[in-house]
This record gives sequence, structure tokens and C-alpha cells, in this order.
Amino acid sequence: MSETLEQIGQQAKDAATELARLPAEAKSEILTRCADSLLANQEAVLTANRADLTEASGLKASFIDRLTLTPGRIASMAESLRQVAALPDPVGEVLSMKTLPNGLIVGQQRVPMGVIGIIYEARPNVTADAFGLCFKAGSAVILRGGKEAIRSNEAIVSIFRNVLGAGGVNPHVLQLIMDTSRETARQLMRLNRFVDLLIPRGGAGLIQSVVENSSIPVIETGVGNCHIFVDESAQAEMALPIIINAKTQRPGVCNAAEKLLVHQKIADSFLPAVCSALREKNVELRGDAAAVRMIPGCIPATDEDWDTEYLDLILAIKIVRDADEALAHIQKHSSGHSEAIITENYTNAQRFLHEVDAAAVYVNASTRFTDGYEFGFGAEIGISTQKLHARGPMGLKELTSMKYIIYGSGQIRP
Amino acid sequence: MSETLEQIGQQAKDAATELARLPAEAKSEILTRCADSLLANQEAVLTANRADLTEASGLKASFIDRLTLTPGRIASMAESLRQVAALPDPVGEVLSMKTLPNGLIVGQQRVPMGVIGIIYEARPNVTADAFGLCFKAGSAVILRGGKEAIRSNEAIVSIFRNVLGAGGVNPHVLQLIMDTSRETARQLMRLNRFVDLLIPRGGAGLIQSVVENSSIPVIETGVGNCHIFVDESAQAEMALPIIINAKTQRPGVCNAAEKLLVHQKIADSFLPAVCSALREKNVELRGDAAAVRMIPGCIPATDEDWDTEYLDLILAIKIVRDADEALAHIQKHSSGHSEAIITENYTNAQRFLHEVDAAAVYVNASTRFTDGYEFGFGAEIGISTQKLHARGPMGLKELTSMKYIIYGSGQIRP
Repeated sequence: MSETLEQIGQQAKDAATELARLPAEAKSEILTRCADSLLANQEAVLTANRADLTEASGLKASFIDRLTLTPGRIASMAESLRQVAALPDPVGEVLSMKTLPNGLIVGQQRVPMGVIGIIYEARPNVTADAFGLCFKAGSAVILRGGKEAIRSNEAIVSIFRNVLGAGGVNPHVLQLIMDTSRETARQLMRLNRFVDLLIPRGGAGLIQSVVENSSIPVIETGVGNCHIFVDESAQAEMALPIIINAKTQRPGVCNAAEKLLVHQKIADSFLPAVCSALREKNVELRGDAAAVRMIPGCIPATDEDWDTEYLDLILAIKIVRDADEALAHIQKHSSGHSEAIITENYTNAQRFLHEVDAAAVYVNASTRFTDGYEFGFGAEIGISTQKLHARGPMGLKELTSMKYIIYGSGQIRP
Repeated sequence: MSETLEQIGQQAKDAATELARLPAEAKSEILTRCADSLLANQEAVLTANRADLTEASGLKASFIDRLTLTPGRIASMAESLRQVAALPDPVGEVLSMKTLPNGLIVGQQRVPMGVIGIIYEARPNVTADAFGLCFKAGSAVILRGGKEAIRSNEAIVSIFRNVLGAGGVNPHVLQLIMDTSRETARQLMRLNRFVDLLIPRGGAGLIQSVVENSSIPVIETGVGNCHIFVDESAQAEMALPIIINAKTQRPGVCNAAEKLLVHQKIADSFLPAVCSALREKNVELRGDAAAVRMIPGCIPATDEDWDTEYLDLILAIKIVRDADEALAHIQKHSSGHSEAIITENYTNAQRFLHEVDAAAVYVNASTRFTDGYEFGFGAEIGISTQKLHARGPMGLKELTSMKYIIYGSGQIRP
């Protein structure tokens, strides 16, 4: 493909203008047809994926796993497209409308973002997910996926573009950058004239690189060094299942708990049961000096531990003097993702909610709920740990912008 | 001052944590005292300003004008601080709160942004304005103003920091970067660890430089190449005052009209009156071939004209075939600021509101209303022409972020 990034950008912008005018029903219909066509043409996708896998043989098992497509995984991709098709359309909603003293009627209306760029790793399922969400939100999307998945991505994109063309929609609402060199990724990050928003999806290195190099606004989905603070007044029978759930239900994700802070007054009575339950789940325990003294076999935590997102069956435990020390520790080490307090103390609960600076702050619940589906958004493009535009789980609404619409009757400014 | 940017950043972050806990009343009280103290100490500010002006002598008159402080201008700065003090506090508002099927109560709460960086030119009034807005919104601010105003800025900041200290507030909520080299500006733009948001205030060159070099999220306040489209069905007696107002009421600002599109069917009858009224206001008229034919003395517009924000008493006029051509022209040349249609045709009005992609889209009103005060925000930090986080006039709310607060009763994720 000899298209330049400039051409891709211009095509996306033009297509986005047309897409913004497409009615909600037409968008849903297209997404449903994309799901059908993906299933009908799954052999082509699997063949392309096998070619990708052949070339990638020798790479890490977890990498290969993420790259691999199966009929089951393709069925999941199709099902996700159907779910997104069925969601309410976020575009057009008027958030507020009021009449000014001079008679101007000023409303704030949700509109498509325009053109969204997605930079991601060799995960072909993201190709379908990202297209589905951006399309439903009324935006054209430019995809730049990992080079190891290029054949799979091309096969998926080709199926969707055929559906778009057959449905009378400009296929440039979905474009895949075929040149997977670092240079094109960098060019994409400077394409401000055409691209309104860039979302990196992947590991910390990818996200860091996009944040540092992009002149386009970026939504950053970051790490989760999530804490649970068990206060003096916590109910042990409530705290224990929350800790086990937050640590072990799915340890490799960003909303899993990585740190446990325990009030010193209950450490003696509480820790034996929770540590034994964690060990039954094969969780490695690390701790500060006090925790190491209390917990047999607990490994001393290093300074680095307190800032580390393990994404693994490891938990670091710190005994704290009081809520003040817990809050100070969280403030210092939190990655701003999800933080929880387990307490029966009203004042400490309210204080924790008020003072902890994170995307999601919990009283008496597992941090694992920080998720677009759990929050009822019906879909999720990621979890933002930055403060601009979107913070926490991002659904369709977070992929939109707004504009002011003003109905006048001849008003001029005095 | 030998502080490094890192130190300034760390100090701002720590001070922001304290400020986030300061009650609304205390913040208002501090801002009122800052206004009082600014007036009480205005001689120190005027003396510093005279020193800045001495050094700046020889620079452009408009530059000197923006740099100059007078007792009247200081009184305005104090009055702005009082107005901001009196506004409702944006922090703490819960935007929505709902109970999920599993009993979790999930709310979305407005919280301070954290640390905001402002990069601006030699306009000492911005020093007071930016501090007032950021402080009220609960955020620490790092100011990096133009080097020609450094003494004036230092004097103003010193007065405010004294008030902060005397009021028991960490003075690091307001810090001025004394080293005004380009290098420190660049360092500030990469201070992601400490700074949550960067706002450039100034000309296109400054904004472009920040957008290109910052790895911190930026809110861009951009140019306004604003159009007014006079449709076939427009009432001439409504269109004329709107055009005169939008072009001449304050031509040097971003929401002033720069282009006039006139439907061909009414051009003959409408243009003579409007052109004569514009010329009475000393507006230079440029136009496309058809406009040049119709308007005596009209200067032919170049291709560049259609993309130019004049910020001056110049208006370029284009005769269009119909609404389609007007919309296509606006889509191609709009800077996404403010666009208006004058029409009595219901369908064209709704279509214009729906299809034009700009921060503010008007029917039958002057583009000059795109302004935080006019929209009833009580204050304005600028007008965003980008699509992320804030679009259009930005008041206190646009300087805040949000977080999810979740009240549980032992919920774990199945």
C-alpha cells in the first residue's frame, strides 16, 4: 500500500464527516452485518492468523497466546460487535439546554470525536473491538497494530470494509496502516491536522512512547498499583473475601489488588486467616518489617515493591499505625487506578473517599469492579488513569466530544 | 532562584494535595484577601512593572500595551479575583450516583485537577487571573510567564503567596518559574510526574510550540476563522446587525467573524446595504470573483484568505450557490471555533446545527457570544477549539477532573 499517512488522515477526516451524519440505526445494522460477515469469513481470518503465527514462532508463549485466533475467539469478537450494536447511540444527546437572559437558547450536545487513532500490540481481537466502539461512537478510526499480527488484521479489516462498502458507508471510516515500521507510528502521532484523539492500548512501554511522542491529545490507560486498607474497625468476614477476590480472581489485570495495608491494632488477629487463605491460592506474600515478623515465611519487601504492579500472584503487606499512615502511603505510591478501604468507621470511610486521588475509590468492595461492563457502560475501550477528559472505565460516551448549539432570534453582543 | 523544575513540581503536587482538602469558604476568603492585598500593595507592583517597561522599551506598541499595568488595570485584576471568589465552588459536586444490580452505589464526583501549568506571554494580568481560577478550582498552579514581565509577575505572586502563608495555606499552590529561558519551558512541558494539565495562553506560535513539545495533556485554545452564512431565506434586518456586530464589535478577538457567505439568490439585494454598513465601520472587504463583480472596490481574495484569521477590520465575502456549498466551504476552512447561519428555513437551521463541526454553532445570532461570561460561567480561562475534555468556553468546571466513588457492603466480583 503506497498511501501516505497524510492521505490516510485526509481520507479518515472526510469519511468521519459522512459518518457523523449516519443515523443510529444504520450504524447498528452495519455492526451486526460485520459480526455476521466475520463469522461467515472466519476461514480467511484463521488462514491469515496461521501465517502470522508461523512467522512469530519462537516468540514468548504469552505473546503467541494473544496473537492466536480460534473459532471461539472469533465468535467472541463477533459477539462483542453485536453487543456494541445493541447499545444506545451516544451521539446527539443534549446534556443541558438553557435560556440565557438575552433569550439565546444554549445547549451542549454530544458529537463524534472525529478521527481516532489506535496504536496497539499484536492482538487481532483489538482490531475488531476498537473498530466497533469507534464506529458506534461515530468516529473514523485509523488502526496501527503490532507488526506480528498484520495479516490477521488485514483479513479482519478487509471483511469489515467490504460490509461498509456494500452498506453505502465510506470504507475509509476504517483504515489499517500496513506499514508497521516505527516511523509510521511516529508520523501517526504527529498527524494533528487529521486525528483528534490517539489511544494507545498495550503495555507500559507502548503507552509511555505514545505519551512522549504524540502531539495529538492522548488518553492514557495506565498501570494499577491498587491498595486495600483494612482499617481497625473492619469486619474480618467482609475483608477476607474482598482481599482474596481483589488479589486472585484475575491477578493479571490492572484492577487487581497489589498491596494490603493493615491497621496495627487488628494485624495480629486478622493476618493469620487472610495469609493462610492467600497461600491456599498460591499467593506469594511480601511485607514490611512488621509484617515479616508476624507472617511466617513472608519475604521482606524492597522499596521498589511498594511502587510495583505485579500483575501476578504476589501481594505486599504493610502494617500501618492508623488511617493517616495508610492515606499517606497510598498518596505516595498509588498509580491513581483503584483504591479500597474496608472499615465500619463512618468518618474514615468518608475521609478515604474524599482524600484518595484515584480513578475509583471504594469502601467495602473489591477493586476488581473498576470496569466498563461492571459499571454498566456495556463496553469498554480501556481504563483511564489520567485526569483529562476521561478518568476510570471508558465506554462509548468517553469516545465522544461535545459542541454548543445555540438557537438565537437576532441577538447581538452589546 | 535555584529551585529545579523537579522541586517546583514536587512542591506543587504536595501543596495540591493539601489544597484539595481546603473547604470552599476558605478558598473564597483567601481570594478576597488576595484582591485586598493586591490593591493595598499596588505601588510595589507598579514599580516592578515600570522596571519591566523600561527594559522592554523599543518593543512593539501592542506588546507594550499588554505588558503595562495601571491602577485601573490592577483594580480590574482585583475585581476579577473577587468575582471568582463569589462563584459556586466546582469541587465536590456529584454528577450522578446510581445503584448497580449488585448493590454497589457508584457516583461520579468532581475533583480538583491537581497541578496545572500555565505558559503565557508578557501579560501580567494573566498571572492574577490564572491563579484565581486554578486556586478556586482546587489546583496548584505553576506559572511560566513571558520574560519581559518577570518583575511584575514576581511582585504579584509575592503578594498572593504572603496572603496564602498568612492564611495557613501552603504557598506552593502558586509558584512562578523565575528562569524564563526556553529550556525551562521545555522542561515544564515534560514534567508529567507532577503536572496534570498544561494550558498555553497566547498567540498561535506559543500554542503550537506547546502542543508539539508537551508530553503533558494540553488544552489548546485556538484560532477563530469564524463564518456567517446568510441563507436565501434570511431576514435582512436581522442579518445586517448580526454581521456588523460579529465583525466590528471587537475585531481583535477569536470569536469575531472573519468570513461572510451569502446565498446567490439574495446577494444582489442584500450585499449593497451590508457592504455600505461595513465600510462605515472601516471594514476592508475582500471577496471571491462573484463578490468582486457585485461589490465596487472589493479586493479579490486569495486562496490564503479563506484560511486566515484576520483579527482585524477585514472581511472576506463569498457568494455560494446554496446551503450545500456553504456547508462544504465551512467544513473545509473552519477552525472549529464559532460558526453561524442566518436563516428562516427550519430545515437549513437544523442541518447547520447538526453538520457544522465547531465548538459553538449558531442560528440567527452573533458569533461574539462564544465566551465564558456570556454563557453564564462567571469566569473564563480560554476557549478550547480541540475536542478532548473541554470544547468552547472553559470556566471553573473545565479546570476540574472527576473520580468514581463507590459505596459497597462487601461486594466481590463473581
